[in-house]
Formats: sequence, C-alpha cells, structure tokens
Amino acid sequence: MNDLYVHGYHQRENERLQDQAGTLVDLLHADTAYPDGSTVLEAGCGVGAQTVTLARRSLGARFTSIDISADSIAEARRRAARAGLTNVAFQQTDIFALPFNAASFDHVFVCFVLEHLAKPVEALAILNRLLRPGGSMTVIEGDHGSTYFYPDSPAAHAAIGCQVELQRQAGGNALIGRQLYPLLVAAGFDAICVSPRMVYVDASRPDLVDGFTRRTFTAMIEGVREPALATGLIAPETFDAGVRDLHRTTETDGVFCYTFFKGVGKK
Amino acid sequence: MNDLYVHGYHQRENERLQDQAGTLVDLLHADTAYPDGSTVLEAGCGVGAQTVTLARRSLGARFTSIDISADSIAEARRRAARAGLTNVAFQQTDIFALPFNAASFDHVFVCFVLEHLAKPVEALAILNRLLRPGGSMTVIEGDHGSTYFYPDSPAAHAAIGCQVELQRQAGGNALIGRQLYPLLVAAGFDAICVSPRMVYVDASRPDLVDGFTRRTFTAMIEGVREPALATGLIAPETFDAGVRDLHRTTETDGVFCYTFFKGVGKK
Repeated sequence: MNDLYVHGYHQRENERLQDQAGTLVDLLHADTAYPDGSTVLEAGCGVGAQTVTLARRSLGARFTSIDISADSIAEARRRAARAGLTNVAFQQTDIFALPFNAASFDHVFVCFVLEHLAKPVEALAILNRLLRPGGSMTVIEGDHGSTYFYPDSPAAHAAIGCQVELQRQAGGNALIGRQLYPLLVAAGFDAICVSPRMVYVDASRPDLVDGFTRRTFTAMIEGVREPALATGLIAPETFDAGVRDLHRTTETDGVFCYTFFKGVGKK
Repeated sequence: MNDLYVHGYHQRENERLQDQAGTLVDLLHADTAYPDGSTVLEAGCGVGAQTVTLARRSLGARFTSIDISADSIAEARRRAARAGLTNVAFQQTDIFALPFNAASFDHVFVCFVLEHLAKPVEALAILNRLLRPGGSMTVIEGDHGSTYFYPDSPAAHAAIGCQVELQRQAGGNALIGRQLYPLLVAAGFDAICVSPRMVYVDASRPDLVDGFTRRTFTAMIEGVREPALATGLIAPETFDAGVRDLHRTTETDGVFCYTFFKGVGKK
C-alpha cells in the first residue's frame, strides 16, 4: 500500500500537504469542533497536517490519530509535540485491522484518506462500528474533476488526468469528493449532510494564488511527472505545457477553481 | 442575433428560465438589494425571470429593464404586471446602442447576458459609462465547464459539450462564469469581488434534484438535441445516452454539481 500511495512520502510532498492545510484550514475545518471529554478517532492522519488543526480546535477532546505508515506517524508525533499538543495519542495501524473495540469512540474524522482506498464503503462501515450510537462521522475529500480555470487548457486537463489515472491504477479515486453522499449512505450513516467547499482563486486573493493554485495544486501535478511519463500516459511536451498552463492561471487575469467536499453523518 | 440565441424563445424555454429563477433565487440574489430612490438598469432582462425577483427585493428602487427582443420585453412586462410591480419600466433596445445618457444610473445589473455576447468586455465598458461615479455593476453568469456529477459519464459530458459548441458558434461563451474577474478588470471596474455560487445536489435535496438537475440543466441540454444533430456535432445515440446519464444523476445515489459566478464592481 505504501509503495502505491500516489502522493508519495517525500519531504517536498510533506511540505505541500502542510501548505494545503495552512491555506485551507478555515474553509475545511471551521465548522468542526468536538466537546470537552469526547473521544475522537482520526483515521489516516498522515504526517499530521490536519491533526494539529483538529486537536487545537478541540483542546478538551482526546484524539487517537492512526496511520498505516510508521514514518508518517513519527512525523505527525513530532509536529504535535512542536505544537505543544497533549491531547493526541498516535498509533501505527491499518484501517482494515483496527485494534479498537466496537462503540469505543464518540466521533470519527477522516480527511484525504478515502481517495486512496479501493474499498471506501467498507472502510467507512468499519469506522461506523467503532462509533457509539449518536456519534458523528466527518469525511473530507477533494475531487480533481472539479478543477477548471481561466485561461482554459486541454494540456493542463491532460496533465491533471495523469494524476487521476495514476491514482486509479493505485486502487484509489481522485474523483471521490462528489461521491461522499452515496458513500456515507452505503456505509449506513444517518442524517447525512454533504457540503462543497469551493476554492475560488483570482488575482484579488494573492494568498490563495500562491498557497493553493501554485504550491498546492500545481505542485501536486508537477509531482506526478515522472510516473506519468514512465507509464506512457502522456507525451512529455504535453505534460510540461499543461503545467505551464496551470502556472499561467496564476497571472493577474487568471482564475482557478477546485472543490473539496465535507460530509457529516450520524450513527 | 435573435435567430442565434442558443436558448431559444419558445414557451418551454421560458418555463425553464422561470424554473431556474425560482429554485436559484436565494443562491444568486439574496445579497442584492438597492437603496430606496436609486436607479437601476437591468441590461438584458429577457422574459423577466430575474426582473420580478430583483424589483420585489428593492421596492423603493426604480428599475429600467431592457432587452433586444420585443417579444421578451412584452412577456417581461406581463410578468411584472401580474406580480403587481410598479417600479419597473421596460424598453426594447440593444446594449450596444443604448438611448441613455452617461452617468444616468446608480447601479447596473446583468444576469445570464454576457454568455451570449461576442464582445462582453465592450458591453461592460458601455454599461460602465452609464453608471454614476461610485455606482455598482453586478454580473451573474453560469459556467457549463463547472458541471460534474456522479455517476460520471463521458456521453453526458459530450452532450453538454454540444451546448457549449453551439453557443460558441453563435458568438457566445458558455464557459464565461469563471472569467468574470478578468472581464470586470478589463472593463475598468474597481473593488471587484467575484464569488462562486455552487449548486450542489444530492438526494437529500429533492427540490434541487427536480428543480435544478432535471428541469433546469438537463432540460437545457435536451433542448439542443436538434441543432446538435443537425450540425453533426454528435451521434444521436451518444447524445441520447448522455441525456439518460444526466437523468441517472437524479436517482437516490446520484450527485450533480454546477457553479454560477457573481461579480460586483464599483465605478
């Protein structure tokens, strides 16, 4: 699974994920806070990009943050320590082999995880069993098919398509954001509410131009150049033109749009 | 121009535009209200689908609503009369040959109009000259490239592409929503703020499933079947499969997404 993880585990990638969490934190997390004394399972915490935000926003809640990668857990633990957080316990474990009893958490939180799983409904159903009755499940995922921009560019869409295809070949789904509602229904949740979190970027929002269009999204696409060319998905000149055209959208007359989806369900 | 108008002037089309205004009214218009005594030019009012909403929300403002089509103006006048509105004057005239003096309006409002114009910046610049200093320009446009859905369907995207191409052949641009910021900049406006208005539809929102996905968007695509086939843009079986797949998104596990853009600038 680690070898197939399409975002990679490299330092630059870690920085990108952190940038992403920094610029998008309000958009994605402003409406998530857990009561004092409640227990929260963060499934798939990665390098802790969301963990620090989550745990800071709910200092009275106790978090258990897990990830399948021991390296990621080590990095997440360092981040949480640097942030002075004492309400997070980290544990290296697999979502499909969790060492927890049924109904042992008040809430579950999953962010940028389902996109990498071949069986997202099964994962949600497993996590559902860990929830106490009345507990909540929160899921956040992106959707690369929500990407459009001005000036438009077939080459840029082709480059983005490489990321989608590589993720598909690795067993994941980069278009999963739009699917959160049916996935949560299929996993047995009630009172499901899904809301889109659209990132709209034009030149009047320079922080997003740099933090999102350039350093989050375009950097992610640039990061798949090697595997995209190695697997023959695209000609190098097309890929490079696509990346140039993504950078072109950061000029003063450019616009960039991307949408995350956040779903909340009750047990 | 009338003959090229891609949405047509037929009764069913009028009903569709009215449906659209009914279900989307809050999303698009909730933050638009004009002070008592102010004068507002609505450029391109069509059959008055937005006029009634606008004028009702600002009963103390005086509206001048224009359209190039005499038939549309006649229908808009009937609608306003049925709604009991007395603060709207209608006039048949062309945006590019307006019979108004410079600086004669406090505000200008343009909705679903630029998408049909070959020279949208020029139109905005002409309207800018009609504004008093400090006046506001409000523009609302859709963007068919913002459309995605679950289950995904290449045939549905191809059918939507026919609408985009027909509108392009008629001199318009069905992807203009994302461009509002650079268009308003180019037309000389200041303090420009563009915000996306995303319509997210899943089975928990049955009014939108029926009112937007089925009766607004899919009905619009169904409406271009004849010209799309006549111009050889698509095979009939592909078009029909695409429309079936758009209807498929209205089932209980389906999701549909579309985004309008609203831009406001100051003179």
